[in-house]
Amino acid sequence: MIIQLEKNIAASQKEKLQEKLQSINYEGNEVNTQFGNYIVAVGKKDFDIRSIGTMEGIKDIHKVSDPYKLVSKKWKVKDTVIDLGDDVKIGTGHFPIMAGPCSIESEEQIESTINHLVENGIKIMRGGVYKPRSSPYAFRGLGMDGLKLWYEQAKAAGLKIITEVMMVEQIEAMADYVDIFQVGARNSQNFNLLDALGEVDKPVLLKRGISGTIDELLQAAEYIFSNGNEKIMLCERGIRSYENAYRNCFDINAIAILKEKTHLPIISDPSHGIGLRQFVEPVALASIMGGADGVIMEVHQSPEKAFSDGQQTLSYKQATKTYEKIRRTYKLREEFKLI
Amino acid sequence: MIIQLEKNIAASQKEKLQEKLQSINYEGNEVNTQFGNYIVAVGKKDFDIRSIGTMEGIKDIHKVSDPYKLVSKKWKVKDTVIDLGDDVKIGTGHFPIMAGPCSIESEEQIESTINHLVENGIKIMRGGVYKPRSSPYAFRGLGMDGLKLWYEQAKAAGLKIITEVMMVEQIEAMADYVDIFQVGARNSQNFNLLDALGEVDKPVLLKRGISGTIDELLQAAEYIFSNGNEKIMLCERGIRSYENAYRNCFDINAIAILKEKTHLPIISDPSHGIGLRQFVEPVALASIMGGADGVIMEVHQSPEKAFSDGQQTLSYKQATKTYEKIRRTYKLREEFKLI
Amino acid sequence: MIIQLEKNIAASQKEKLQEKLQSINYEGNEVNTQFGNYIVAVGKKDFDIRSIGTMEGIKDIHKVSDPYKLVSKKWKVKDTVIDLGDDVKIGTGHFPIMAGPCSIESEEQIESTINHLVENGIKIMRGGVYKPRSSPYAFRGLGMDGLKLWYEQAKAAGLKIITEVMMVEQIEAMADYVDIFQVGARNSQNFNLLDALGEVDKPVLLKRGISGTIDELLQAAEYIFSNGNEKIMLCERGIRSYENAYRNCFDINAIAILKEKTHLPIISDPSHGIGLRQFVEPVALASIMGGADGVIMEVHQSPEKAFSDGQQTLSYKQATKTYEKIRRTYKLREEFKLI
Amino acid sequence: MIIQLEKNIAASQKEKLQEKLQSINYEGNEVNTQFGNYIVAVGKKDFDIRSIGTMEGIKDIHKVSDPYKLVSKKWKVKDTVIDLGDDVKIGTGHFPIMAGPCSIESEEQIESTINHLVENGIKIMRGGVYKPRSSPYAFRGLGMDGLKLWYEQAKAAGLKIITEVMMVEQIEAMADYVDIFQVGARNSQNFNLLDALGEVDKPVLLKRGISGTIDELLQAAEYIFSNGNEKIMLCERGIRSYENAYRNCFDINAIAILKEKTHLPIISDPSHGIGLRQFVEPVALASIMGGADGVIMEVHQSPEKAFSDGQQTLSYKQATKTYEKIRRTYKLREEFKLI
Repeated sequence: MIIQLEKNIAASQKEKLQEKLQSINYEGNEVNTQFGNYIVAVGKKDFDIRSIGTMEGIKDIHKVSDPYKLVSKKWKVKDTVIDLGDDVKIGTGHFPIMAGPCSIESEEQIESTINHLVENGIKIMRGGVYKPRSSPYAFRGLGMDGLKLWYEQAKAAGLKIITEVMMVEQIEAMADYVDIFQVGARNSQNFNLLDALGEVDKPVLLKRGISGTIDELLQAAEYIFSNGNEKIMLCERGIRSYENAYRNCFDINAIAILKEKTHLPIISDPSHGIGLRQFVEPVALASIMGGADGVIMEVHQSPEKAFSDGQQTLSYKQATKTYEKIRRTYKLREEFKLI
Repeated sequence: MIIQLEKNIAASQKEKLQEKLQSINYEGNEVNTQFGNYIVAVGKKDFDIRSIGTMEGIKDIHKVSDPYKLVSKKWKVKDTVIDLGDDVKIGTGHFPIMAGPCSIESEEQIESTINHLVENGIKIMRGGVYKPRSSPYAFRGLGMDGLKLWYEQAKAAGLKIITEVMMVEQIEAMADYVDIFQVGARNSQNFNLLDALGEVDKPVLLKRGISGTIDELLQAAEYIFSNGNEKIMLCERGIRSYENAYRNCFDINAIAILKEKTHLPIISDPSHGIGLRQFVEPVALASIMGGADGVIMEVHQSPEKAFSDGQQTLSYKQATKTYEKIRRTYKLREEFKLI
Repeated sequence: MIIQLEKNIAASQKEKLQEKLQSINYEGNEVNTQFGNYIVAVGKKDFDIRSIGTMEGIKDIHKVSDPYKLVSKKWKVKDTVIDLGDDVKIGTGHFPIMAGPCSIESEEQIESTINHLVENGIKIMRGGVYKPRSSPYAFRGLGMDGLKLWYEQAKAAGLKIITEVMMVEQIEAMADYVDIFQVGARNSQNFNLLDALGEVDKPVLLKRGISGTIDELLQAAEYIFSNGNEKIMLCERGIRSYENAYRNCFDINAIAILKEKTHLPIISDPSHGIGLRQFVEPVALASIMGGADGVIMEVHQSPEKAFSDGQQTLSYKQATKTYEKIRRTYKLREEFKLI
Repeated sequence: MIIQLEKNIAASQKEKLQEKLQSINYEGNEVNTQFGNYIVAVGKKDFDIRSIGTMEGIKDIHKVSDPYKLVSKKWKVKDTVIDLGDDVKIGTGHFPIMAGPCSIESEEQIESTINHLVENGIKIMRGGVYKPRSSPYAFRGLGMDGLKLWYEQAKAAGLKIITEVMMVEQIEAMADYVDIFQVGARNSQNFNLLDALGEVDKPVLLKRGISGTIDELLQAAEYIFSNGNEKIMLCERGIRSYENAYRNCFDINAIAILKEKTHLPIISDPSHGIGLRQFVEPVALASIMGGADGVIMEVHQSPEKAFSDGQQTLSYKQATKTYEKIRRTYKLREEFKLI
């Protein structure tokens, strides 16, 4: 049950509300975000919500039977649109492409990527400075130095930055240089990290776990929201399956289902979703028809020389064609709304 | 290694060829189809194929390192197009929609479906008369009686029939009333059935196994081809995964990869691919952008009353909109070839 | 609902029973096996079963809410024991080891295997004469000739034969030479084959599907039972997973759960269950502690020369040690019943 | 390649070694643990290791082709035994049982558990004070207060404590009250946490990821080892599969394979491995025959009232019987070494 509070609700009214909830054996979790104040009440007993809805200081009240609450479409029917400033928006009615290398490697590489993105009218650049790697001996990213270098150039070019954060301690230092924090598949249920990202007023792109369920993803997002941050987007990036012909199994079904279950934007990651360069385009286009609100993909000036993920990275030339097809496919999907 | 033979190759030349193969420890499997005569030679030793290619009676010779041979694109670069007659074709350059109920239920239902299909310009009707069911106590289909009833009406309306065959003994009786034999997911590796379908000159739609790999699907198709029947199409219908939010996990990646590996047409089955009515459309459209050569889907005049699979079946009204979107999406994909 | 009939129930009483069932919208499926006569009634309405139980000619009546009925432990609490004659039994209180090569290859190989088995006190020999192979170009078994050859020697040595049947047409010819029909993983839901095996009075070992669920396995067994054959044993042989360190993922959990759900004996197949020779023994022993009623495993005089599955096949020397450990582990498990 | 250094190797000799490695394009990672000093050299070129092995200050050198190095059995053939003091050891030749509740709930519960464990001769108590929960609204543990309370009582009773750590910041505060740090399945690839645990001289039990591969688990352990901590044990706790009859699919194969690949002790967690109370015992016993070096399991005075995981938790009465069977099964397995 989600109880939306009036901004100016009196402390005494809140107390009354909590007492009321206790009396019916509900636990009331107070949630204050950039945009609203809520009590998420969790309990078992069925009762007439009007007895609460009519209390003073209550704006609205909704029953939400899902295990996730605040991220559910059952109470917030209007889709979330995240505004990054400078007219860059993510959510229904917009279709951002985020592109860039797997890893930030050098000043020269940053410059080259930015030129490519600007030429193609892309506003959000992806890149990793902290890299989760299976092996401790692999390249683990340029860290804060790389991020600062990147930030300067991106800012000058008017580009927004999305990059992965791996641990709570990194958040504060990174926050000034990042427009979207990315949580990787391996950290999809790193609950302390999610808690901490809930306390920052920065958009978060949350990837589905390596074998995460749709429900787990939504509950992970609930961690961020319930700690105070409503600016969340979810990302389908393929799941683990028995099939060895590709890296991950892009779950096209999940996009359609997520669009029904949540008001949050859904971004597709076709690069990880199939893991093979020559098939990134069809998966990207498919994900749009499946309902995605945006795409994040890997490009590199020389994919075969990339520090990581080269086999799933597009060259600029390939990518340029793909961007055009993405935009035309999105346009057609928008036209379908009229049928 | 695939050795294509001249139509008029002399018996003595064939013998010589087999001797040559034996001399290098290759086993030569003779394959005679509607369209060609081949020797599929399997062995380990590497050798100069020109020593065979220049023998008399040999039209062409190709090394194929895949575990499947005749269905591989490595030797037959040109995509297979299956001609059902009456200008109904399946394969690159065509985009057939196959639609109909899960089970054939009654004369009235057949009639109603046919009207719906004809109105929408659809040429191939699907429907089951032999139904594989998990439980022995469930409805198992109307059998030959149902098929004959259906055939008469479909023929009159100019529709082609696709229906599932479950066992070798059914093939002969069914053959006169069927335009495409469907092999279901549970029979995807029923090798005797595949062998027998290789001996019939009827197109076969072969579904991927419940947890079949892409390679297993291609090798299963190889059974049909190597027994004499080149008219094969493959069908992606979702695989089994850990996710419970849907029935099957539609493997969009598989379509892109299959299009690269084989010259056979790839049909997508979004109905089974997600198993939930309200999401069949996005999955269908996604599969087109993923590269599918056609779609097979379930429609019913009253899905909620269907004998089987009702929850994944579209009503006529829904389906009519979906057909239009399918056609426009396919059109856009074709335009992309020019970019 | 399972209604056990008296052997001598009058036709008129049966009719009355069916009328009664119809009156409450239940479908009554008549099942006559080697051991009993039953009506399996399937319907939705809840009602007092005593109204049927007290009818004449009714021996007993049980509600079974599972999707499978006759194979459920809910009505038949006493475990099934299958008697192969000559004091060879399968089921609680007995622990048969079935061993032999993957494929029957030659007279000499049969002889060698038989000697090995007899020396080790093993009574049931496994071996394939019809082999399901992913590729049509692989060795597909010696067929009936091989089976007859084998039968003669096995009979002389007092051994029972278990071998795979792949299609309905093979059953009749094979029946005289076989003590247990094996249904392979790929045919686990080949419903026509299951139907046909229900009509034979021969024990059937039914393997779980490549990615079969426990419920699907039990329902597949229900096909056999409901067609008239109660002599069924189930086999856990590993399932498909994302892990590539082994061939299949032996599902130890399934054994414990099957033992609770069904009265049928559960056989474990550690050879396929892990697919790597050096680990067959620990998996075999584990399966006993997990609750298995017997083991089926692959042995060969020279595993590295075996026509198929060599990598998971034990040598005689290895196997001899494993048999001893199997027997001692089983003995300990039996002692545990007293704790 | 693992280069073991002499304790007293001169700085100049180390420098020479690094130069040598650079000259052949190898990266030399210096690793200093409680027990040894190593250079883990990663590169591609093949060369004669004797050219390094004969340098001064080098104790030994081994090629290790696995993606994991220091945890591989290829260089350290002798199994690791972890000494917790007070004669409590983990590793080949010992078989520790670790038992206790899922969550530490109260002083009374701690006391009750300790009495049960002491009566049964169990030396290591498990329990969670920081709980990773799918939902942010679920009970998340008593935290440090709970841990201190527990520590006092456990210490008095002579019990060792194993408990989960979820984030880097918790390590320092917890270290004084913990005998074994547990890393949960969701943090199995939380690389920063693994790094930090490498810097502590406390044993770590590392659980396999929800869908972790065996290789990923070993590489995760490599993070801990390469940061300086050799006291690592691995834990099989079931993987995610398509089967819904149980919570997780206990991977018995993984135990056998891990025992071959690594020198680290392997602990089995049958409670999570099947997730259903009545089947914990057979899975526990099976895991011993599969090769496990110890068992960790959940017990509670009233499982049905446990704050978490009650459905997979044994009562004291059940557990007492299981302990006895565990010990007898282990004894038999040890006897098998003589066969």
